[in-house]
Amino acid sequence: MTIFEKSNYPLIDVRRHLETGPIVLVSSAWKGETNIMTMGWHMMMQFSPALFGCYIWAGNHSYDLIRNSQECVINIPTIDLASQVVAVGNSTGDKIDKFSEFGLTPVKSDMVNAPLIKECYANFECQLSDSNLVGEYGLFIWEVVMAHVAISVRNPKTLHYRGQGEFMVAGDKISFREDFKPQNL
Amino acid sequence: MTIFEKSNYPLIDVRRHLETGPIVLVSSAWKGETNIMTMGWHMMMQFSPALFGCYIWAGNHSYDLIRNSQECVINIPTIDLASQVVAVGNSTGDKIDKFSEFGLTPVKSDMVNAPLIKECYANFECQLSDSNLVGEYGLFIWEVVMAHVAISVRNPKTLHYRGQGEFMVAGDKISFREDFKPQNL
Repeated sequence: MTIFEKSNYPLIDVRRHLETGPIVLVSSAWKGETNIMTMGWHMMMQFSPALFGCYIWAGNHSYDLIRNSQECVINIPTIDLASQVVAVGNSTGDKIDKFSEFGLTPVKSDMVNAPLIKECYANFECQLSDSNLVGEYGLFIWEVVMAHVAISVRNPKTLHYRGQGEFMVAGDKISFREDFKPQNL
Repeated sequence: MTIFEKSNYPLIDVRRHLETGPIVLVSSAWKGETNIMTMGWHMMMQFSPALFGCYIWAGNHSYDLIRNSQECVINIPTIDLASQVVAVGNSTGDKIDKFSEFGLTPVKSDMVNAPLIKECYANFECQLSDSNLVGEYGLFIWEVVMAHVAISVRNPKTLHYRGQGEFMVAGDKISFREDFKPQNL
């Protein structure tokens, strides 16, 4: 397992890791209990403050932990964690401790109680910004308040869910930087 | 340029093409004018009816066309359209006709007035489902009402924006189908 050396990362650049649409692991904590869930339905919503929206189904065991604590950490796994991602998504936290069961390591966050997942190359600490849409759409709007990224990972092999148990793995990076207007970069 | 043979596609499976987080081209029409914009901030929100949320900045020329018509088409480009994607995203429809300027072909939709983009392997016709969040968050919630997909494209080389003019190109597909619980597929 790769051990990542992570730095504090500019919040304005969080979109560089989330806009590509990776499957993420959401870690949460409430009253001494922690849990992890997989999530693929999410989007950036604002640069600064960095807002991030996601859909969480009320049937998930994490739902109550997240709703009560109003916090979570968005962790981005890469292909070396694929089997853990699948296992986390196909088990429920009311029966097992997913951290110990799947060999994932909780690390203390700086600004929220939910733990970071050490084995993920990027971790974004989030505080709930708006819960008005949770009831109707299951839509949580988060402010990313602290970001930790292993910047040595230049082209993360993230996982992108295609349904039916299939993932697309992030491929090559191509740059069109010279074709962009400066204000669009 | 590949000419795709597209079929009507089950709406329940739209997520298989959008959940991976590709850059999309949004086509719109209002009072005889059409336009195209690039978009990367979007997410699935419901399976059935298929709901899809996206952020559209009020400064985009497409914003008024979309807001007034309450319709759009979400078109998914692949890497062979990369230069067009960049050109569309770095120009404004108040000065040019992006279809003719960038060699993209408008095709009549079945259920909305906005045209499909022929050169994209997948086109999703959308009607506005909820505009309550447009004011505060620029968040449009769409119902996908008709889907056209070239199902011969098994592993579309979609583009995923990393910021700074860089894209990740969709890579290999891997299956963990046998590790999923049937109800999670």
